[in-house]
Amino acid sequence: YNIYKNGKNIDRLGHVTVVVVGGTGDLARKYLWQGFFQLYADQIGKGHTFSFYGGGLSPTEKGTPLLFGILKELACPPELSAERCTLVKDQFLHLSKYHQLKTTEDYEKLSQQIKQQLGQEGMVEAGRLFYLSVPAFAYADIAEKINNTCRPPSDAWLRVVLEKPFGHDLYSAQALDKKLSDQLKEKEMYRIDHYLGKKVVSKILPFRKENKKLLDPIWNKHHIERIEIVLKETLDAKGRIQFYDQYGVIRDVLQNHLTEVMTLMLMNLPANLSNSMEILQNKLNFLASLQHVDNSNAVVGQYQAYNGEVQEELNKTKDYFSLTPTFAGVVIHVDNAQYEGIPIFMTSGKALDERVSYARVLFKNDVFCIQDPNNVQCKSKQIIFYLGHGNLQYPAILISKNLFKPELVSSGDWKEVTEYKDVNVLGLPLSDYYIQSPVTPREAYCELISHVFFGRKDSFISAEGLLASWAFWTPLLEGLSRVFPRVYPGGEANGNLLNFQLQGHQVAFSHEAVVNIINPGAKDNFQVMQGKYRSSEMVSAWAQELVERLASDLLLAAEEAIREEGQFHLALSGGSSPVALLLDERCVPHTETGSNFRSIHDLLLQHIRIPYFNIHPMPVHLTQRLCVEEDGGPALYEKEINKHVNGSSFHYILLGVGQDGHTASLFQDTKLENDEERLVILTESPIKPHQRMSLTFTAINRARRVGVLIMGKSKHELVSQLSRIKGESSKYPITKVQPKTGTLIWYIDYDALLG
Amino acid sequence: YNIYKNGKNIDRLGHVTVVVVGGTGDLARKYLWQGFFQLYADQIGKGHTFSFYGGGLSPTEKGTPLLFGILKELACPPELSAERCTLVKDQFLHLSKYHQLKTTEDYEKLSQQIKQQLGQEGMVEAGRLFYLSVPAFAYADIAEKINNTCRPPSDAWLRVVLEKPFGHDLYSAQALDKKLSDQLKEKEMYRIDHYLGKKVVSKILPFRKENKKLLDPIWNKHHIERIEIVLKETLDAKGRIQFYDQYGVIRDVLQNHLTEVMTLMLMNLPANLSNSMEILQNKLNFLASLQHVDNSNAVVGQYQAYNGEVQEELNKTKDYFSLTPTFAGVVIHVDNAQYEGIPIFMTSGKALDERVSYARVLFKNDVFCIQDPNNVQCKSKQIIFYLGHGNLQYPAILISKNLFKPELVSSGDWKEVTEYKDVNVLGLPLSDYYIQSPVTPREAYCELISHVFFGRKDSFISAEGLLASWAFWTPLLEGLSRVFPRVYPGGEANGNLLNFQLQGHQVAFSHEAVVNIINPGAKDNFQVMQGKYRSSEMVSAWAQELVERLASDLLLAAEEAIREEGQFHLALSGGSSPVALLLDERCVPHTETGSNFRSIHDLLLQHIRIPYFNIHPMPVHLTQRLCVEEDGGPALYEKEINKHVNGSSFHYILLGVGQDGHTASLFQDTKLENDEERLVILTESPIKPHQRMSLTFTAINRARRVGVLIMGKSKHELVSQLSRIKGESSKYPITKVQPKTGTLIWYIDYDALLG
Repeated sequence: YNIYKNGKNIDRLGHVTVVVVGGTGDLARKYLWQGFFQLYADQIGKGHTFSFYGGGLSPTEKGTPLLFGILKELACPPELSAERCTLVKDQFLHLSKYHQLKTTEDYEKLSQQIKQQLGQEGMVEAGRLFYLSVPAFAYADIAEKINNTCRPPSDAWLRVVLEKPFGHDLYSAQALDKKLSDQLKEKEMYRIDHYLGKKVVSKILPFRKENKKLLDPIWNKHHIERIEIVLKETLDAKGRIQFYDQYGVIRDVLQNHLTEVMTLMLMNLPANLSNSMEILQNKLNFLASLQHVDNSNAVVGQYQAYNGEVQEELNKTKDYFSLTPTFAGVVIHVDNAQYEGIPIFMTSGKALDERVSYARVLFKNDVFCIQDPNNVQCKSKQIIFYLGHGNLQYPAILISKNLFKPELVSSGDWKEVTEYKDVNVLGLPLSDYYIQSPVTPREAYCELISHVFFGRKDSFISAEGLLASWAFWTPLLEGLSRVFPRVYPGGEANGNLLNFQLQGHQVAFSHEAVVNIINPGAKDNFQVMQGKYRSSEMVSAWAQELVERLASDLLLAAEEAIREEGQFHLALSGGSSPVALLLDERCVPHTETGSNFRSIHDLLLQHIRIPYFNIHPMPVHLTQRLCVEEDGGPALYEKEINKHVNGSSFHYILLGVGQDGHTASLFQDTKLENDEERLVILTESPIKPHQRMSLTFTAINRARRVGVLIMGKSKHELVSQLSRIKGESSKYPITKVQPKTGTLIWYIDYDALLG
Repeated sequence: YNIYKNGKNIDRLGHVTVVVVGGTGDLARKYLWQGFFQLYADQIGKGHTFSFYGGGLSPTEKGTPLLFGILKELACPPELSAERCTLVKDQFLHLSKYHQLKTTEDYEKLSQQIKQQLGQEGMVEAGRLFYLSVPAFAYADIAEKINNTCRPPSDAWLRVVLEKPFGHDLYSAQALDKKLSDQLKEKEMYRIDHYLGKKVVSKILPFRKENKKLLDPIWNKHHIERIEIVLKETLDAKGRIQFYDQYGVIRDVLQNHLTEVMTLMLMNLPANLSNSMEILQNKLNFLASLQHVDNSNAVVGQYQAYNGEVQEELNKTKDYFSLTPTFAGVVIHVDNAQYEGIPIFMTSGKALDERVSYARVLFKNDVFCIQDPNNVQCKSKQIIFYLGHGNLQYPAILISKNLFKPELVSSGDWKEVTEYKDVNVLGLPLSDYYIQSPVTPREAYCELISHVFFGRKDSFISAEGLLASWAFWTPLLEGLSRVFPRVYPGGEANGNLLNFQLQGHQVAFSHEAVVNIINPGAKDNFQVMQGKYRSSEMVSAWAQELVERLASDLLLAAEEAIREEGQFHLALSGGSSPVALLLDERCVPHTETGSNFRSIHDLLLQHIRIPYFNIHPMPVHLTQRLCVEEDGGPALYEKEINKHVNGSSFHYILLGVGQDGHTASLFQDTKLENDEERLVILTESPIKPHQRMSLTFTAINRARRVGVLIMGKSKHELVSQLSRIKGESSKYPITKVQPKTGTLIWYIDYDALLG
């Protein structure tokens, strides 16, 4: 390893050749050339000379204008005057050249050209920097070409910069590493994790060092309550599915970025922050001390629109279902005396409510506030490595004022912020924090390009560190490959659906049983989620879409019945839920407003063409009196059912549920003992009108299909309670709806489902 | 033990004689007779007959009108109609009688009278109830008299009710117990802790039983973060010092009330809640499992006015100082697998900001809220046994809605509250709790008198329980007998002064070093507190009183100097603090407003008679130019000092301190290397006017007395910081003020001290 000393490159001075392979690609356009321009501006007149090559597959006549199109757009570094910048940029353009890099011959030519130039100008060669801005599958091939044709003389350095993904799991990472290390030495490879280029991330170790005296007594299980390492995105994966669906959030974010942050926070502090070897060893020791994680330590989710995007972008059929998680919450524990028992919540997701990234150490509340609980002493104690966005909008390190006043080693790069915007960051107003922030927050790539130039290996991923991280994550990834992620609607609408909680050292979604499993056989494009509820199929969506879906399902069921039997027997329930579409009736005349028949008549029947004799209101008003037992209304209706409905098995029964769990007019106190053989009974409702006539569970459970429609926030508690009850509960009559041979489908809108 | 079964007394029916010894005293008037009247009203027509005696030291002709004066004022029980109540009250008065109870003969006569009445009316005797509403020192004597002369026949019960204090520590409690148990059997003694008569307290065990299934998994160290048992009072001890000063808050509240509550919350749940023996045994087991507490586990305080009250009520001299704490915060740990490591904060105090009493179990936050942090699931999870007052104003059990929905065993005594006042209780709005509250909150004494009648021993303190509690508290009480409590101003002004915090298993005040020790030799009656600050004497008070005290101290010092030497040399500082009373000067003409001399002149000198030649402004304006080194101003002023001041040792130097810690015109950057021999130097201030002339630390530290006056909230942070620095710190020049042989006194007002 090349050891970086006191901020100075100890390599010899001379000529440096930079080659950006993929030099006209997206990443190069957005970040890389800007980084190299900055490097050139920084290094000008400091003894090195440079030449820059943009390499690509296109021939020179196509590539050259592309490259110069990019270079002309480069922004001026803020520290340069406009005049000076024009000069520097002219020089930079002058030193830059497009070079086709496709075949081995192309690489040979490049090498020739470098040698030739060096010879002509009588320059000593300091080194060659290859930045591989190409898909990972091309790495091995390019590395081989570089190795075979483009090595500088042995007294100059070779540095090859690589970008993630570095493999897909431990085995593929090992295979890639093997291929690369056949061509390049470990010290020649610079694997980028752009998180390590973030000022706050690279400040974690120095911060811990500067405040060692203050942190040492509290940086342990006795004082730390929890650690949170979080990257929340509002963006989705649309347009990037080709890449994303192979990886998912754990490979994309947790395995690399968040693991690096966790490691920097919790690894043993090296005695010497400039000693890359010591840092690497401490990182490896830390990764080795992590407890094994598996499915029980993680929750995963997928935003609702994702699967449609997968079907579209990957040309999949409508029954294809991707299990790739776009959200993950993992709890990690460390197996050492210092940290054991501290839950480390690591989480990331797309299509969430806000964009923010931070790592937070929350300390235990050890204060008892007799009075004045708003005093700063009584508030939560935490240290936050705030990487950006969110409420704060700038990167910073935040330390609760009641914890300690941090040292600020005035390197000039960092400043103390004492102007407090009126915002809350993770539970505390900004004024409750000591805030340190980088003076000029440089783009991470710019930072890292400079680190490559200075040979600061500790800002990059080592092969050993990479494999150790994959070794940690691979068992979980394998376990999750068979798990249906929880579907979430995306954005604010996620509400509390993704909150998760500890159960010992394991985690589970806080709102557990509402949706368990995704039905991979979804046949349509509705904005609905399919799942399991009380072990039966569930459809959930916003109210409008849910009702449309229900109507469509009813239509399908009707068409099927008509096709097969030439008739369709539908029983509709009263109550407020299924207003859109009579199996129970209030004992009032059919013409009065309280009548279920009257409702259905007004809302539905009067609008559709349906033969009068196909409509069968319940006989609650016989002999001019309402529901008198001697009149035998139920028996009469039973006869009618038996006459029309084959085997008294309706094709479809649509039910609602009351907040008390009643369905149809079957209430908690309804006596059912002798009703097993009966299809229709008289019941008593706790609310007016008290007398009711209703189909029995016997009749309901004979139906081919039963739909239960539940809508509105007022039903959320009921939905949650029902989800926790296995089987029947006499408290909730709806739980007795269990079709014998038919199917039960729950239609629950998001308000009822998510609260 | 007499076992109470299914709410029914299993004693035989018959005549019950109630004797309230001290029957015309305060407690009897306020609570006891009301309780017995309620008992009579409840029991009327249920088979028992009653007679009631009010006993006292007065002869019959004096005692009788006193007693009936009390009885006539009794309130009607709410369940009785006015008419019915008049009837019941007439009967109650008819059955009541005053009886002198002084000598053994008096008790003999009483016994005679009871026998006679029983004989005349042919009644079977059920039992005799003696309520000793007398000071504890009289218990043993009365118990002896009862035992010798007033025992009922062996088939009737004898119950003697006693009130705390039951001793002063373990040894005195043992001695009292010995004396009493020579006369009375344990089953005959009913020791009252009125907390056990509070509905919420007596509901703790039933609540735990009713919710056993839900509580069992979480009632342990894995889920409980902390427990708080709190009784805060706004009242002081004024008027009750005679009693209070012997006891203090730990004996008065913690040893009994709060220990009982803690025990009920954490003891093993008895299999049978009616089994007094099992309950007692579980209580004893719990008390035995407590970790030893000593001074390191407690903080104590005394409200500021207390000592004056002690001097007055106990006729003590002005230099008497009581160490009795009126505030205590203790942390208790349990040494068993279920609860180990959970901190139990037990605290009580007088003269605090609010009146409230509760016991709270706060559970660990095990949820990670990805979104929607205001969702009820993300809020704190707690169970509160709320005993009354505070924000809620009624007794209740509160359970966070995200914890579980508690069972409400509908005994009729308890109801669910679903109307939510818009108040916050311990961090959560009321609507975030399930609330159970007693239907009719009875007065605790009323409840307990009924329990005595029914022989419900588990509502009373057993001898074993009492001694176990004393055994736990006595070592701490002994340790604290030599500790100066922290003085607190009382009420809202306490601010955060009494907040305390865990340090491992120990506790300390959160604002540690500000005031350490009370000076017991306070000679005056100022509303000031004396203490130690940075190892020197400190005087603190509200600004007005502080300045008066400083003036008075200056006067005393001047008088003493004049008396002894005929002269008084005072050096005054510029700046904003000591405006009321020149040892440093700004380099501006003396006539300009920025001049320290001009300030002192305008504020002081022009108003007093002081010879012109006794005033010595600093020579900052020599040869018509300001503080030019060549002019030798400092040397000139040094000469002047040496000429007038004996040994250049001022009698008094009064200093202020800037927010940056500077004093006089000695700043952090002032070079002091060669100044050891110099008395006056030129310095540079970081703020305008930059040029200054100042006495040196050499001169200051030669003074006989140095006063440092610090006032205002803006100095609070400085005061806190300085308190944490031992010795000198180059960052804070004021720390270099360390008179060699003289004394240093800090005058810090409450704003600066308490923030």
